[in-house]
Amino acid sequence: MIRAAVLEKPLEPLQVKGFPEPKMEPGSILLKTVLSEVCGTDVHLFHGRLGECPYPIIPGHINVGIIEHIEGEVRDIDGVPFRTGELVTFLDVHNTCNNCWFCLVAKATTRCPHRKVYGITYSAAEGLLGGWSQYIYLKPGTKIVRLPAGVSPERFIGGGCGLPTAFHAVERAGIFIGDSVVVQGSGPVGLSASILARLAGALQVILVGGPRHRLELGLAMGADAVINIDDTTPQERLERILALTGGRGADVTIEATGVPAALKEGMAFTRDNGTYVVVGQYTDNGTLEVNPHWEINKKHLDIRGTWGIDFSHFYRSIQVLEHYGSQYPWERFISREYSLAEVNQAIQDVEAQRVIKAVINPWA
Amino acid sequence: MIRAAVLEKPLEPLQVKGFPEPKMEPGSILLKTVLSEVCGTDVHLFHGRLGECPYPIIPGHINVGIIEHIEGEVRDIDGVPFRTGELVTFLDVHNTCNNCWFCLVAKATTRCPHRKVYGITYSAAEGLLGGWSQYIYLKPGTKIVRLPAGVSPERFIGGGCGLPTAFHAVERAGIFIGDSVVVQGSGPVGLSASILARLAGALQVILVGGPRHRLELGLAMGADAVINIDDTTPQERLERILALTGGRGADVTIEATGVPAALKEGMAFTRDNGTYVVVGQYTDNGTLEVNPHWEINKKHLDIRGTWGIDFSHFYRSIQVLEHYGSQYPWERFISREYSLAEVNQAIQDVEAQRVIKAVINPWA
Amino acid sequence: MIRAAVLEKPLEPLQVKGFPEPKMEPGSILLKTVLSEVCGTDVHLFHGRLGECPYPIIPGHINVGIIEHIEGEVRDIDGVPFRTGELVTFLDVHNTCNNCWFCLVAKATTRCPHRKVYGITYSAAEGLLGGWSQYIYLKPGTKIVRLPAGVSPERFIGGGCGLPTAFHAVERAGIFIGDSVVVQGSGPVGLSASILARLAGALQVILVGGPRHRLELGLAMGADAVINIDDTTPQERLERILALTGGRGADVTIEATGVPAALKEGMAFTRDNGTYVVVGQYTDNGTLEVNPHWEINKKHLDIRGTWGIDFSHFYRSIQVLEHYGSQYPWERFISREYSLAEVNQAIQDVEAQRVIKAVINPWA
Amino acid sequence: MIRAAVLEKPLEPLQVKGFPEPKMEPGSILLKTVLSEVCGTDVHLFHGRLGECPYPIIPGHINVGIIEHIEGEVRDIDGVPFRTGELVTFLDVHNTCNNCWFCLVAKATTRCPHRKVYGITYSAAEGLLGGWSQYIYLKPGTKIVRLPAGVSPERFIGGGCGLPTAFHAVERAGIFIGDSVVVQGSGPVGLSASILARLAGALQVILVGGPRHRLELGLAMGADAVINIDDTTPQERLERILALTGGRGADVTIEATGVPAALKEGMAFTRDNGTYVVVGQYTDNGTLEVNPHWEINKKHLDIRGTWGIDFSHFYRSIQVLEHYGSQYPWERFISREYSLAEVNQAIQDVEAQRVIKAVINPWA
Repeated sequence: MIRAAVLEKPLEPLQVKGFPEPKMEPGSILLKTVLSEVCGTDVHLFHGRLGECPYPIIPGHINVGIIEHIEGEVRDIDGVPFRTGELVTFLDVHNTCNNCWFCLVAKATTRCPHRKVYGITYSAAEGLLGGWSQYIYLKPGTKIVRLPAGVSPERFIGGGCGLPTAFHAVERAGIFIGDSVVVQGSGPVGLSASILARLAGALQVILVGGPRHRLELGLAMGADAVINIDDTTPQERLERILALTGGRGADVTIEATGVPAALKEGMAFTRDNGTYVVVGQYTDNGTLEVNPHWEINKKHLDIRGTWGIDFSHFYRSIQVLEHYGSQYPWERFISREYSLAEVNQAIQDVEAQRVIKAVINPWA
Repeated sequence: MIRAAVLEKPLEPLQVKGFPEPKMEPGSILLKTVLSEVCGTDVHLFHGRLGECPYPIIPGHINVGIIEHIEGEVRDIDGVPFRTGELVTFLDVHNTCNNCWFCLVAKATTRCPHRKVYGITYSAAEGLLGGWSQYIYLKPGTKIVRLPAGVSPERFIGGGCGLPTAFHAVERAGIFIGDSVVVQGSGPVGLSASILARLAGALQVILVGGPRHRLELGLAMGADAVINIDDTTPQERLERILALTGGRGADVTIEATGVPAALKEGMAFTRDNGTYVVVGQYTDNGTLEVNPHWEINKKHLDIRGTWGIDFSHFYRSIQVLEHYGSQYPWERFISREYSLAEVNQAIQDVEAQRVIKAVINPWA
Repeated sequence: MIRAAVLEKPLEPLQVKGFPEPKMEPGSILLKTVLSEVCGTDVHLFHGRLGECPYPIIPGHINVGIIEHIEGEVRDIDGVPFRTGELVTFLDVHNTCNNCWFCLVAKATTRCPHRKVYGITYSAAEGLLGGWSQYIYLKPGTKIVRLPAGVSPERFIGGGCGLPTAFHAVERAGIFIGDSVVVQGSGPVGLSASILARLAGALQVILVGGPRHRLELGLAMGADAVINIDDTTPQERLERILALTGGRGADVTIEATGVPAALKEGMAFTRDNGTYVVVGQYTDNGTLEVNPHWEINKKHLDIRGTWGIDFSHFYRSIQVLEHYGSQYPWERFISREYSLAEVNQAIQDVEAQRVIKAVINPWA
Repeated sequence: MIRAAVLEKPLEPLQVKGFPEPKMEPGSILLKTVLSEVCGTDVHLFHGRLGECPYPIIPGHINVGIIEHIEGEVRDIDGVPFRTGELVTFLDVHNTCNNCWFCLVAKATTRCPHRKVYGITYSAAEGLLGGWSQYIYLKPGTKIVRLPAGVSPERFIGGGCGLPTAFHAVERAGIFIGDSVVVQGSGPVGLSASILARLAGALQVILVGGPRHRLELGLAMGADAVINIDDTTPQERLERILALTGGRGADVTIEATGVPAALKEGMAFTRDNGTYVVVGQYTDNGTLEVNPHWEINKKHLDIRGTWGIDFSHFYRSIQVLEHYGSQYPWERFISREYSLAEVNQAIQDVEAQRVIKAVINPWA
């Protein structure tokens, strides 16, 4: 039997259960899990804050594993066939349909209504479709990518889904050489956004967040300055940022907090005619008050909501890990590995921000 | 003596006063006013809602007149000298410095801190620097444009400052052939935005506003459908727009209302991954509540604040009047002409939306 | 037996042959052809100028027909099932793979190496996969679109493949309200580009081409001025365009000629820092000499090659026909209908420019 | 008397002459030259290849010096007054008019017909308006920038005009994290473009040029791979680049060679739907043959000519030197300092590529 952690319903502790080996369709792959991520979205999933999800669910949407079995032939984007024993990952988003108005006319594939997401919108009743499991069943058409030499499972999962999410945000931000960038939030998305803003040419990256151990990691990996929200007032943070940006504010601010009130600060942090990317509001945490005259219209502000990722963000992120991973060792984001039996602890530790990133090793 | 209407201080009725002929600097021009606009900004100026303005002020920032006198030589952007007797207008924004960080590095000239605006940020103590006056003194460096043949003073002032403001908004909107566009607000900015959205290739333009006479003008000039806010609920408006846009919402929505709550509706009117341009919040009218998860982040929405205009918007607008003025006769926006003695009535009529556009004829 | 015109090999007259009814795969559709286009690409196909094509071929890539049979269920991009008897068209490009580097990372789907094109890269040996046939077999996954009410088969096929090709070119051109646009070439692509440039907000559209009857149609449908290449020298054409554009040249020039030497003129027609879209060079007609200092570098010119179309261009074009077809009746591009027996005559007439557009009615 | 090197006419050796102290206008500054650059444009100037220039000329357009005298008050872009003794540089481009169609409507200020350039389009008869002089007269309105702490005169002049020119090219290139970039040409522009491509997020930078000592510097400063044109054929270079880019070619290629034939190679180096920036063709060196079908249209290529720089490129370049100068020490581009008496030798050394960059110390 294959062991996997199952979330039967929101707020109920996950239990490890046994599953039979899956029946393989042509073009499918059976992956032996090496590591699976615990991300903030899993905390939302645990609390039932992601809308209608098909509980029971095996969580774990970002994963790395070894190909155990290939049913027929499956090729990568360059047409090279996969072989058993290869170390690979796959885009959690599946079934972007390439056949609807959003895919074909708007070319906004992250809003395709047919997308499914491993570990989130697939039910355990449908199979081993999440990574907190010893094996994962990759349906035909799943977008699979080999880990390049030099990218260890730990480095990849250290980036996790925060890295491609940040990639998308930085792409939306339009950062160019010379920009001053503020990143709000020092979780995995914010930390990766700091690094990527740097790679995109930012002259300075100011990371606003906490607690202290996250900011220290940020300083070690890309940020020029950090501001700890635990020991500053909003006014002090604003003054600090203005002082660092010639009194004008940041050219670009990237929100990666999950806290609605952060938008109020973020708009103030950004200079007139600057850009504000909102990427951290992945669940409904309430509202904030906005003054459209001062904060949008007169400021001539660009605000860019950013939802999900597509394959390009995932693929490019792996290339970033390959080329810049020794300069910015993403594996340092991992605070601790957990066994399947410890998944409930892992969720609690992520929620309490006791760890930067928790990862699941289903064979531990 | 030259007669001009002067606003001594906020909320005090304007009075017509006499001024001596101005002393001319080299490169300056004396303009005999033909028509001057009363725009919503003048209502804000009257109420003292534009921040610190140097009262007493001669209002009137968009004007058309005949060149009475040129001190030395003044040329247009093609190097052709102006001559007395020519019918011209000028960009109300003066002194964009071309020497500061916003002008030179950010190339965001509408946020240049050195800009001055005729009729708003110049005091009557500094001269005849507003259009509710028989003559206007054009300082050296003022950007002057001839009215082309076929563009009457009425047609130009019918466009007024709403037309270039809408031009800027439509430029920010990135409308392309095939888009569905919603315009919120049927005042001069909204009506011009409807026409310009059409000119930019919108397949359908839906105008949301009121009262009825404005919507009828909208239907006659560019809009395909109108929704009257006086006889619909927000939910009905949303349903109507979804019905007209395949259930997805508009590709682009342009806000031109001045009412903060309109943003709530506008975000809902716009489809996922669409664009929302906020151009109508020209003074502080309070706040609205925003849910950043549903309305920005998950929606993958672009929100683009739009402040002021630069010369290109002004110049292109005049070209639009020249080429499309017979198709869309902007002079129809003018509800009534007022004499200098009637300026207080004009302001009241604009504020009460009894007119679409009021214009001042200082020689009437 | 189903009658279809077959091109056995380049330069050999097409022959009408009989084919059996196709065997239907699940998700396929049998279309009864109403009209099929003869486009310049078919002339290239006839001459063997399109690289390796799988002769014998049934030409005809842009088609309109009535659904005769549906094998199972096939839905449009909004999820609405097709029904027999509906009047539809389909994107000639098939099998864009959504699985390769160009599709997924570069998002340059028109360069997907797996694309197939009905009537061009499918062989008659593979089935009824071109439109010069009484029936067309639509493979599963073919992107099918209903003709909207008001878009007759003639109007649609009048637009043909020139319209979406021009749509792509105009999209690449970045035309905005106020631009002066030159279109080189008055064939179906150039004529459609003139109209679309107008719809995108061009203040003036100058059409350079010939012969006279095409230019007359251009003047009747969107162009403000025409220049006949048959009775002007290149120098005269340049002077005319400079005279019409304030001495600076066009903001945007769109090449739709197929003649390499046209690029030399086109670069000269375009102003400094303008945009030059090259869309007409669909086969190798040789070279031209370019001076990179004067014509590219010092001119600060943008040159944008434009290949093929994707579904969005096709879909938007049909929307344009629906909304603007009465203003610009594309059916006027059709000079003559030909029967299957007359296809060789049709190719000759297109090649000799005796017609603007030839269409095939396989039931005539 | 102030000593300066004067080019009386093309091809005639420069002579050192004495000039009186200039008469100062209000708002002007007298700068004591520290270092002045010898750039490829000076070689063109020497040969008379820059069109009509007002010989006699004091060359030297990129300069650094110490403020000797200020006539009245002169402020930087943040409004801070300059003081004597400060180490500054200035944008060689002067008099961008901010009043013409190109400046105001097209916003293409590098094509403003009123621009003047120190050291190139100012005559020695008009004053000390070039840097190969002990003092330089900065006219009112000259855009002056302080060297930040940490940017030595050598570091600044090592960047010289190649750095902001490359900045403009990289801005035009639209490089983003993940791109493969080829730079053609290993002179000062190409070497700076390599570094800036890296700063903008390129995953790999391939530098094609020579001779060997330049390529070695390139490898030490940003390039991942180099290809020496002295020991490879064009076919070998192409194969090497395809091998490094997954067989597709570079996402972006930047031409910085001055050799027309380089464009032929550059288009081949670039992948389908890639971007090719042409920035090196600063004088007329003849033509090349282009096949528009294969090289532009079918390739769906973007070609972007890039002329001159504006203040933003200059200012941002100085910020790059400040923030990245210790990582990429631009002073290493300087091969040798020359005295005024040695300027003819300097020009010859630059022309023969015996040096990467030559600088003039007029006090040596």
